[in-house]
Amino acid sequence: MPYVNIRITREGATREQKEKLIAGVTRLLQDVLGKNPQTTFVIIDEVDTDNWGIAGETVTARRQQGR
Amino acid sequence: MPYVNIRITREGATREQKEKLIAGVTRLLQDVLGKNPQTTFVIIDEVDTDNWGIAGETVTARRQQGR
Amino acid sequence: MPYVNIRITREGATREQKEKLIAGVTRLLQDVLGKNPQTTFVIIDEVDTDNWGIAGETVTARRQQGR
Amino acid sequence: MPYVNIRITREGATREQKEKLIAGVTRLLQDVLGKNPQTTFVIIDEVDTDNWGIAGETVTARRQQGR
Amino acid sequence: MPYVNIRITREGATREQKEKLIAGVTRLLQDVLGKNPQTTFVIIDEVDTDNWGIAGETVTARRQQGR
Amino acid sequence: MPYVNIRITREGATREQKEKLIAGVTRLLQDVLGKNPQTTFVIIDEVDTDNWGIAGETVTARRQQGR
Repeated sequence: MPYVNIRITREGATREQKEKLIAGVTRLLQDVLGKNPQTTFVIIDEVDTDNWGIAGETVTARRQQGR
Repeated sequence: MPYVNIRITREGATREQKEKLIAGVTRLLQDVLGKNPQTTFVIIDEVDTDNWGIAGETVTARRQQGR
Repeated sequence: MPYVNIRITREGATREQKEKLIAGVTRLLQDVLGKNPQTTFVIIDEVDTDNWGIAGETVTARRQQGR
Repeated sequence: MPYVNIRITREGATREQKEKLIAGVTRLLQDVLGKNPQTTFVIIDEVDTDNWGIAGETVTARRQQGR
Repeated sequence: MPYVNIRITREGATREQKEKLIAGVTRLLQDVLGKNPQTTFVIIDEVDTDNWGIAGETVTARRQQGR
Repeated sequence: MPYVNIRITREGATREQKEKLIAGVTRLLQDVLGKNPQTTFVIIDEVDTDNWGIAGETVTARRQQGR
């Protein structure tokens, strides 16, 4: 009964991509650890780029600089 | 000084329901462990059904199938 | 299919107390929001008092001062 | 490679304030533990006041009472 | 720069299995969303069966009943 | 009433270092956002290097290669 939380920046992930993430992580936990998919939770959090920092600056600032 | 994080799908929980969850969890921690309500935090995260997966599929897909 | 994470200081909660927390939170989510207990997860994290801060100091320091 | 999650109520924090939080926490981890800023993540979650409880009531209710 | 948190019960996952989970989730995020592996974090939390509840009871209790 | 969760690898952080992190983050939130230190929580999670992945491999593996 694993619980997986995926946090990504909110930059346009589609419903299809989210479905692939959820299906893929669930399968991985079954393949590697034998976990039952029926009780595997996957929650995706999309975070505004103003609210995500790396290397001491926001992702918003990094995107503006072409990174 | 407990910290409680309740994650549910975003499907219309009302302010009154959230108040009941917060009051109820706080009282439970006081009753069971003697925790001081003054320093008990409860945070409710409401998650879009596209972003919540169980059994390898999104809750959105499950709702469409009447589950 | 709620997910609940309860974080408390590691100060001797017993198995019976944990069972009461888990049963109580699960029931609360069923009573208030109609959530299915079969897919309600509750995870309790016990945190060393050296690793929990409030008001700018560790709980260890506060306990030593009788608080 | 630390991961820091800061959760605050959604009450108007500006982009500049978020930048200061991210820069400040990243520097603190470098100063105290020697952590590499390049792989330090800081994520800020802003939570609606209806969804944040303290002392058994929502922050919304507390704000209405002038607290 | 995704952050992934995998929470499982502490029931003997080996170092090799953890390596497979970390490699697999990182690859999945690259394949589905084009995320850079260099800044993908994966953290695995292993939780005691006394501290994990499902359906209102601990995993410890369920294991004792052969579930 | 902020809640801050700092996750670092378990590689010998001392009590004094943890105290500095807790005091520093609490002060930062007061300075930048005017948050009341009395209701600021800081929780430090120390994670085994086998359980922390970056760039698709464990920190244990990276340390063995001198990184």
